[in-house]
Formats: sequence, structure tokens, C-alpha cells
Amino acid sequence: MAEPEPTHVDVLVIGAGPSGLMLATWLSRCGISTRIVDKRPSRINSGQADGLQSRTFEILDSLGIGADVWREANHMVEIRFWNPDEHGELYRSDAMADTVPGASRFQQATLHQARIEDFLLGYINKHSSIRVERGVIPESLSIDTNLTDSANEYPVSVTFRHMLEEGTVPEQIYGSHASGIPNGLFRSNLTADDTASLLEDALSNTSTRSEKVLAKYVVGCDGAHSWTRRQIGVVMEGEQTDLVWGVLDIIPITDFPDIRYRCTVRSQEFGSMMIIPRENKLVRLYVQITEKDGTGKPVKRSDISPEILLKNAQKILAPYKLSYKHCHWWSAYGIGQRVGSSFSVQNRVFLAGDAVHTHSPKAGQGMNISMHDTYNLGWKLASVIKHRSDPSLLGTYETERRKIAQELITFDHKFSRIFSGRPVKDILGDGAIDIETLQEAFKKGNTFTNGTSVNYDCSIIVSKEPESRALKAENFAQKNGVPASSLNLDHQPDNQDLATGILIGMRMPSFKVLNQSDARPWHFQELLQSNGCWRIAVFPGDLRNADQFARLTTLGQALAAKDSFLRRYTPRSEAIDSVFEIITVHSAPRSSIELLSLHEVFHPFSEEIGWDYNKVFVDDVSYHEGHGEAYKNYGISPLTGCMVVIRPDQHVSCISSLEDMRRIDSFFSGFMIEQK
Amino acid sequence: MAEPEPTHVDVLVIGAGPSGLMLATWLSRCGISTRIVDKRPSRINSGQADGLQSRTFEILDSLGIGADVWREANHMVEIRFWNPDEHGELYRSDAMADTVPGASRFQQATLHQARIEDFLLGYINKHSSIRVERGVIPESLSIDTNLTDSANEYPVSVTFRHMLEEGTVPEQIYGSHASGIPNGLFRSNLTADDTASLLEDALSNTSTRSEKVLAKYVVGCDGAHSWTRRQIGVVMEGEQTDLVWGVLDIIPITDFPDIRYRCTVRSQEFGSMMIIPRENKLVRLYVQITEKDGTGKPVKRSDISPEILLKNAQKILAPYKLSYKHCHWWSAYGIGQRVGSSFSVQNRVFLAGDAVHTHSPKAGQGMNISMHDTYNLGWKLASVIKHRSDPSLLGTYETERRKIAQELITFDHKFSRIFSGRPVKDILGDGAIDIETLQEAFKKGNTFTNGTSVNYDCSIIVSKEPESRALKAENFAQKNGVPASSLNLDHQPDNQDLATGILIGMRMPSFKVLNQSDARPWHFQELLQSNGCWRIAVFPGDLRNADQFARLTTLGQALAAKDSFLRRYTPRSEAIDSVFEIITVHSAPRSSIELLSLHEVFHPFSEEIGWDYNKVFVDDVSYHEGHGEAYKNYGISPLTGCMVVIRPDQHVSCISSLEDMRRIDSFFSGFMIEQK
Repeated sequence: MAEPEPTHVDVLVIGAGPSGLMLATWLSRCGISTRIVDKRPSRINSGQADGLQSRTFEILDSLGIGADVWREANHMVEIRFWNPDEHGELYRSDAMADTVPGASRFQQATLHQARIEDFLLGYINKHSSIRVERGVIPESLSIDTNLTDSANEYPVSVTFRHMLEEGTVPEQIYGSHASGIPNGLFRSNLTADDTASLLEDALSNTSTRSEKVLAKYVVGCDGAHSWTRRQIGVVMEGEQTDLVWGVLDIIPITDFPDIRYRCTVRSQEFGSMMIIPRENKLVRLYVQITEKDGTGKPVKRSDISPEILLKNAQKILAPYKLSYKHCHWWSAYGIGQRVGSSFSVQNRVFLAGDAVHTHSPKAGQGMNISMHDTYNLGWKLASVIKHRSDPSLLGTYETERRKIAQELITFDHKFSRIFSGRPVKDILGDGAIDIETLQEAFKKGNTFTNGTSVNYDCSIIVSKEPESRALKAENFAQKNGVPASSLNLDHQPDNQDLATGILIGMRMPSFKVLNQSDARPWHFQELLQSNGCWRIAVFPGDLRNADQFARLTTLGQALAAKDSFLRRYTPRSEAIDSVFEIITVHSAPRSSIELLSLHEVFHPFSEEIGWDYNKVFVDDVSYHEGHGEAYKNYGISPLTGCMVVIRPDQHVSCISSLEDMRRIDSFFSGFMIEQK
Repeated sequence: MAEPEPTHVDVLVIGAGPSGLMLATWLSRCGISTRIVDKRPSRINSGQADGLQSRTFEILDSLGIGADVWREANHMVEIRFWNPDEHGELYRSDAMADTVPGASRFQQATLHQARIEDFLLGYINKHSSIRVERGVIPESLSIDTNLTDSANEYPVSVTFRHMLEEGTVPEQIYGSHASGIPNGLFRSNLTADDTASLLEDALSNTSTRSEKVLAKYVVGCDGAHSWTRRQIGVVMEGEQTDLVWGVLDIIPITDFPDIRYRCTVRSQEFGSMMIIPRENKLVRLYVQITEKDGTGKPVKRSDISPEILLKNAQKILAPYKLSYKHCHWWSAYGIGQRVGSSFSVQNRVFLAGDAVHTHSPKAGQGMNISMHDTYNLGWKLASVIKHRSDPSLLGTYETERRKIAQELITFDHKFSRIFSGRPVKDILGDGAIDIETLQEAFKKGNTFTNGTSVNYDCSIIVSKEPESRALKAENFAQKNGVPASSLNLDHQPDNQDLATGILIGMRMPSFKVLNQSDARPWHFQELLQSNGCWRIAVFPGDLRNADQFARLTTLGQALAAKDSFLRRYTPRSEAIDSVFEIITVHSAPRSSIELLSLHEVFHPFSEEIGWDYNKVFVDDVSYHEGHGEAYKNYGISPLTGCMVVIRPDQHVSCISSLEDMRRIDSFFSGFMIEQK
């Protein structure tokens, strides 16, 4: 058979789990030529991930699907801690908020991974003709390094086998256990990868066809056993322990009083358990496996079953009773933390999600961090492919996301060891953990696990003082007894003091503001929809003040000028807000300002539909939803104001004074390409 | 051709506009055999109603579609008043909240009627196999009075002609005007009904088939020209004026600063206009037509066009400019207010919506009141058809809804006259209305128009003191200088004093409470989903108090007893919460009470899925959403408590003390049927 003609595509996504689908949402929204393939012939509809961070809800909301997921999810409001008392009997030792109050307008919640995928698939279908191709087994991958320097070439070549029959459920899913309950062991880190055997089957199967795809970029979102990762020689670094935990999704029948709270339960003798309440009356139990076999040795991994897991859980929870009639899924995993040695090769093949970081699932981070990886990468790829940004932008994917992956495994390493440790009774035994240590770990962990504390380092798209330099100055100042601000450090200040509540590198925090034109309240983040736009948030302060009004008018003239960054980097054939959207939030009372008195650039006019009424907002009291106090919360002075550059992924790039448009101009000239 | 065999159905709904579809939502949810037909072969997707009351959102939310409509709608936050100043020039004279703050958790908003219908159709499709049959022209209707006394008979006979070709747009919709813009004149009250001509066409068309339907109940939701109404001889009573107004849906291009606020604009010489901001940048203008033709006479109705409406609007709005490139729809109507002489015949054929009350559209009431009619009727029909309630229940439809219709036209009569009146300049001319009168009318009107003030009179399902008797007592007491409470009036007190914030006859107000089992906050109304259930809201007060705890336990035993109303009226084959759902809200701190310490009837147990964790709530502070202060807002003492019976449509039926279960028992025995 002659080799078929290769097909071309801008981005090839390998793997259609949460990280692959999140990538496809960006690419579908930005109109990028995309293929997304998955080796499994059909989707898996039970088990897997279920935890959703506050930050993930913010991201889903920026795609217009946050409210739907929020409504369907089980909201986790409180964590309750159960520990053995002095007699070794369980008691409720403490309780705390599951999400740090005020961190986000969304709290942590749980919803089954397959439903999240449904919503992402719905988004992709709505915005593009991209469709997931299933039963597509990868065969080989190569990069033509002669082509990698040119933006228009297709240097990555991938061959596939397409299974022509769809809908086969992986054999392993119902496994060898008599229960007939779907299990996830075939995807667990306790089991070897099956891609090779799937490929072998495909090659020996006459009802398959092969295809060669030439892509500008390939992104491996193909999970912990990543085939893509192996092709590009990236290795996972870290460690694996002997600790084995089980997972059980059941509708519990129990007299344990806190079964609908997230709980940590640590027994004196039989290990620990975490209770995660889920949607549709389900509860997920993470159960430490301490069960012994007939000879007193730890139970073999191959003997783990729902019955063993229930038995362990019953012992941990005694004297409370626990049973079930409905079990939806179960699995087991070994605890370990590993990160890929690299996140990309030549910025042409990228790895994301479990393909490049693995850890234990109990903290509910996996699905979130995986989606955040590609939420970081997607808009960058789209911008480079559309020749709006220089390919150097792509280098920030690895620098930004590898740091987060490392923070994640550091957290998980500590967290899972603390949680697997035995409770202290009378004396501190080896590895014993007291209640205070455990609860403190949760408190600290919570700031990390809601996902809003992610802070990207300085780079071409994060214009802030490198921490090391700032720290050095501070140390020097301290040692020498002089104020740090008095030092001439020969570098540009990052203007962080103009908006002390908006931290450069972090995601833009959200407070309620009102639309100047109709008084409707909006959370500021609701204005930052994920459509590929950069935002320039202009905070002109109190516009009743003539100086502030004049500064805004001068800024308007500069923005509207023919040589401004707005004009240079926006294609002439496109709308003036297609690359940069200017959002103004002033702090004068709403009734004291008329929209049309502001410079036109802040509310552009269209011959077809008149003035734009959705660009100017006000920090004022609403009739029904209180006062957002945005200026106060953002730490901006109404008599100074500032401008904030916000990336397409809602992270803050830089801050400048209202006069210093040159700073923003020079920021964008670092990586944007002039348009015709 | 032989006459075809008649088909049988429990409920036949004639007309698939908002009122017909709202009826079908109940019938689909309650599993009632239903047909719904509409004479038009296809839906109309522009123009018509757009105003949504707060109460309508509450109802839509009880169907699970409120959040979607809320997200898509344009929220109206503020009304601004424009009037001529002493020189006759327009100025902004005042502003006020569009919805009275605190009246509801939803504010008034606008969204096109066709989208509301989409959501209702989606609900019906999800819950049943009921599908709207279009192009079905009614031919005749008769009632066999020999059968009307038996619950199991089908006394109403209706014959139809089915058009077999679907998708034809009514000819009139693009009318004779050159503009080609869809117009609504063919549905306006300025135009005669077209049912007769449609039927004539159908009878002469060979590609139609006839059908005879025998129904237990027929509901005419067939609009202002209602065919059903004419068949049963109901006449419209009221008056029609010469005042003609136009409606124009455009994307405005204007320098008028308040175009995205709801505005009343009254010019000195050219009449008045109302501005209603809509979704998708649309604005609806209601324009008083004062234009003259060439000879100085008022313009003929047949000459009204979008151009005439724009010209009028421009004159009213001068010196501000107004034009448009996009007009989506226009129409014109004469102002009048009329109510049907009766709302039903023998409680077998009912009328709802525009079929039985018409008024002017400016206050955005029509679609709402029409949907509320059938929201009132639907659960009653379902309950009677399922032999849960006595047919006498159906009599409350007319007594409850006719009162509302009359309140509506009284309001509209006053409101539209005030709004069509000329502004006062120097002296009070005939019919001149000053600013204060206008704004006062809006303020008073707002309490009515948000829909939350509906108050049903005492009846078999509203157990309160008749107002006349209470008023009489109060007057007597006042005259004689004695406290009213001291009078022996020989009637049962209605216990209104046990919950001063929950008014018997009105819809249950909503405040946030927390789920005892997981601390998640819910608006109380969110617990009152429209599924046909009655709710017994039990407010046991502070359960740390031993007396209160004991009273709750005693109540639990009474409720669980074999002869309680709960047992007598719930079919034995169905779940214990299938007819009555008991929702408990206590006021002790959440952490001081254990769910399982309460009597089982408050959190029923199932062998399959364990305890029910969604029935017991607490009035306590939440981590992220404040304190609902439910007891304070409901006016219930934590050391007394009470029980509140809530109808399936969220209206309050009766209030009793915790001990007085006999009162509730006797309430239900007034119309419920004992089950086996």
C-alpha cells in the first residue's frame, strides 16, 4: 500500500482529557487549525478526577461555562477533622472553611471529570468545527530541525493508526474482579501503560488505516503514561513510595454524622481516610490500605478490591457504621511525586497535565493544574500562529508552568506524608503526626489548593522586579539601616505601589463594579472573557477632579494616536478592540459623569451599532448587590489612578501610571509583531 | 370520508405561547397526559413581549431555568425620568431603582419572548414526551354536561384541522410596508383575528386532516383574539381608547446619554416615549403617535410605519439625535384594558393569559401575568387528575387569578393615562400631569409590577382571616377604643402573628439558610422546586432549648403516626416525600446540633441510599455569603417557632404552632383525597 499523502494542521493535540480539551477551547475560540486525537475508542464516564479549585471556576466562567458547572457541582464548604482521643476513640477535633473566605467569588467544589469534559466539548463544538477523533493510536513522532526556525513551516511529523470501529470499552475497565464495578486500575500508576499493546493490536488489525500528520505544533496531553513524552525523551524526575491508597465512589449508608462534609479521619490503628462529598449523593473515600492478608503480610496490590477498601474504611470509621448499595467506581494508586525534566522540545512539542507532573490525588489538584497548563499555553500558541506575537512567547510556557508543577509536588509530598502518618497518642513515635501539624498543613495548603495564589515570575510578559533583586535590595537596606526605596538600583521600578492589591504575575482579583451606562453590577473578572484579547484596565480615579479628567483625556489621545501600540499591533482590517480591549473603571459617583464626555477611545463608535456601552465602569454602590469597593480593594488611589495590563489568561503583566503609556508601549514591543 | 375515531387526552392546551407552555411545564413534570396545539405553522422569532418580573424569575428558577434566563436577559437596574424644563427643554429630572430593593433575589429584566419559550420548550422536552403540534386550526368545541360531574370522563370535545405542511410564515408578518422589517400588526389589537380565515383556508386545502379530541380539561391560552373564549361565550369587559402607541425594536445610534437605562421621556409638544433596554444591544421604544398627515389630521393607523415611529421618537428626544441601521421588529397598538366575564366554564374549560385579560404593554406585565395564570392552574389540574385533590380545588383558579387580572387593569388604566398625559408647564391644563404625579405612579407601580405583591384571598387553600372580617374587627375595635385582639369574633385566628414576615396568601419570601449536613447556603425558595409537592416548613426555633427540642420530637411523632395527613394523603406505593415534603429550618448554631438526633421523619431513611441530607437547614452564618437572618426576616421567635404550609406554587396556605398539627390536618382534609 502506498503511503498516504500527509495532512497539515497548525496544532495537533494528543489526548482528549481535561488538559487536551482546555487547549482545544482556546484554539477553537481563536480560530486555529487544530486536530485533537485520543487513543481510547470511547470516553470513560465514571471515576477519575473530581476536585475543582476556585481558580478553575474562574477560568471556566471566562469561557461562559462556569455557572453551569457551579450549579451542577457539589460545593465543599467546610473541612472537618476527626482524630483519635486519648482513649484512641474518634472525635471531631476541629472544623474550618474549605476555601479561604475572600480568595475568590467561587469556592472549591466537586464534579465528575466526565461532566467537565462534556462542558468543554460543548464549548468547542459551539465555537469551531474541531471534533475529537477517538481510537487514534500514535505510532511515531519526529521533528525536522531544519524547519523549526520558520513560523510558517510544519516541522513535526506524527503517524497514527485509526481504529475504524468505535465504541469499544477498554477491557480492563471491568477488570478481573467479580464485583463488576468499573475500576480505574488500568489508568493507575500501579499498572503499566497500554499504548504499545493498543498499537500492536491496531497494526495487526486489517480494519485500521494509517495517517501521517504534519503539524506546526504538537501538544502531548496524553496522561501519566504519556506516549508523547517518551518520543521526545523527556523523563520524569522524583520519587515513588510504597504507600498505597484506594479510592471508592459510593452512595454511603452510614451513621457517621459528617459524611457530607470534607473530612480527614485518622484512626489510631488502621490508617487514615479522606471523605470527599460529591454530586448526586455520591461520596468519594480515599482509604489508606493497611489490610493484611492471611499470613499477616500487607495485602497484594492485585488483590485490592472494593470489598477490601470498604473493610479498611469500616475499621477507620469505627464505631460508626458504613456500608453501601451503590458503588460507581474504585481504584488504587501508589503515592509519589514526579515532574518532567523538560516541558517542551524546541517550543514545537509541548507536554501538559499528567504527562509532565504526577502526584497523589487526595488534594484534588490534578485535573485543575492540568487544565491550567493548557490554559496558559493555548492563547500563546494562537497568538504566535496568527503572527501577532513572536515565537519567543512560547518559552514562557515552560518557565511559568514548570514552577507551578514543582510547587505542586512540594506541597503534595509534604501533605501526603503528613496525612499518611500515624496519629500521635501519648508519645511521638517515628512518623507520628500530631493534630496541630495536620491542621496547620491544611490551613497553609488551602491557600495553595484554591489555585488563586499562582504567581508567575518576571519574563517578557510579566514586567516586575525579579524577586531576587528586590530581596537583595531589601536585605542590603536592612543591613545598612537605610530605606530600600532610597537605593539607586539601576532598574525600572515595577509600579506595584500604584495598585497594592493587584499583584503583578498573579491573576487579576475580582470585585464588583457597575456599568456606567446602565448601573448593572459585574464582577471585574466577568469582563475578562477568554477570547484572546489583552486588556488595558484604566483606573483614572475620581473624574470629578479636573486633573484626573485631564490625565484621562491625554491618555485617550495617546492611545488613539496613529503610532500607539493599539494601532501598531492591531491589524487594520480588524476591530479596534480585537487585540487590546480598553476597560475603564473610574471612582466618581456614577451620576456625576456622562459616558460621552470621555474620549472616544474609551467607548468606540460604530457606524452600524453606535457607541460601545460596555467599556466604562464605575466603583460605586449598587441598588441590590452592595458596594464592590474596587479602588480600596485594588489598593489604587482615586487621586492617582493607574493602568494595568492584563494577559488573555487574566494574569497581570504590568502596571503603569496614567502618563506612562511609553512603559506599556515598550512592554508590548518586547514580543508583539507590527501589523498591517 | 368517515369521521376518524376520537383521541383521548387529560388536558388539551390550545395555544403555545408563554401561558400555554407554562401550563405544559407543570403537566410534563407531573406526568399528565397532555396535548398542546397552536394554529400557527411556525414560531415567530422577533418582537412581542420582553419584560420579565422578579416573580417570574423566581418561578423560572423553581423550574431550574431561572439562572439561564437571568444570564441571557438584560437586567434593568434603574429608571430615569426625562421631562421638559421651564423652557420646554428635556432634562433628567430624577432616577430610581427599577426593582424595589429587597423585594426578591431577582430584579426585573428583559429578554425576548421567543427565548423564554425556548427555555420552557426545553424543559417540557426534558421531562416528557409532550411536543407542541403546530399548524393545528381549531374548528369546534362542545361540552357534554352529562359528563362534567365525573372525574374520569372526557366531557370536552374539540375538532381540529391539521395543516400538513409546516414552516409557513404568516403572510402578514412582513406586511405591506416596503421596509421588509418584521411587524407585529397582525397580532395587534388594531387588527382583526385571522383564525376564521386560517380555518377557511384549511378546509379548502386538500392537504389537511381533521381530528376529534376528547379531553378531561381544555385550557385556552390562545391570545387576545382567543378562539376558545368565543366558543364558551365569555366576553371581554372594559374599555378601549383612541390612544395609539407604536413599538420599535432597534439598535439605536444616539447621543442620548441614558439609552441603556429604562427611561420615561415626556416632551413638551410631541408626546411621550418609554425606552426599554434589551438584550443584544437592542432597545425597545414605546412611542406615542402624535404625527399628523398632510392635512393636519392624525396619521391613519394603516399608514403607521417604522419611519413614522422613528420620526415621532426623534421629535420627542430632540435635541438629542436618534437613528438606526438595525430594526428587528415594530408594531402599534391601541390602549385599552379588558377582563373576561369569566375565567372558566364548569371548571372544564379554562382561559388564561391574553385570552382573558388585555392591557397596554408598556409596563412589561403581559407575558408575566399570563405565565402566572397557568403557573397557578397547572399544579391544581395535575393534582385533581391524579385523584390527589378534589375537583373543587379548580374553582380557586378563577377566584385567585381574576382578582389579579383586575388589579392589573386598574393599574394599567391609571398608569397609561398618566403616561400619555401632557406634561405640566406653567399652568395645569386639561389632562396635564406633573412630574411628581408621574414619578409617584412609578414608585407605587413598582411594588405591583415586580410581581411579588400578589396576595390570594382566603379559600380552601388559603387559610387566613377574610380581610373584610379582620377589617371589621379592627374598625370596631378602633371605634370602641378596645384592642382588636380582645374581641371574641367567633372565628379561628390565622396565626399570622407566629410568622409576621410570611404573609398568608402571598408567595413565600426567600432568605438564605444553610444545609445542616454540609453548610452550603441556599436561598429558601431554591428548596421549593416546582415538582407538585406541598411543603411543610417546620421552624422549631433554637434546638439547644430543651423545650423546643421536645416540641419538635413530639411533632415528629405526630407526623410519622399512621393516621397523620402525611400518611393518609400519600399513596403507599410512593416515597414519603412525594406529596408533602417536610423542610426543617432551626435556629441553633449549626455545630450544636447533630442531624441524626432529630426524629427520622425530618430526614427519611432509605435502604438504598441512606439518610436524606437535604431536608434540615439552619439559620446560621455562612463562610462566604453572610447570614440570611431567616428567623428575623420571617418574624419567627426562636423560642416559639411555627409550621408553614406552602403550596406547590410557593404561595403560603396556612401557619400553625408546632403543637397544632390538627389545624394542618384539617386544612388538608378540606380538599385532599385519602390514598391507598
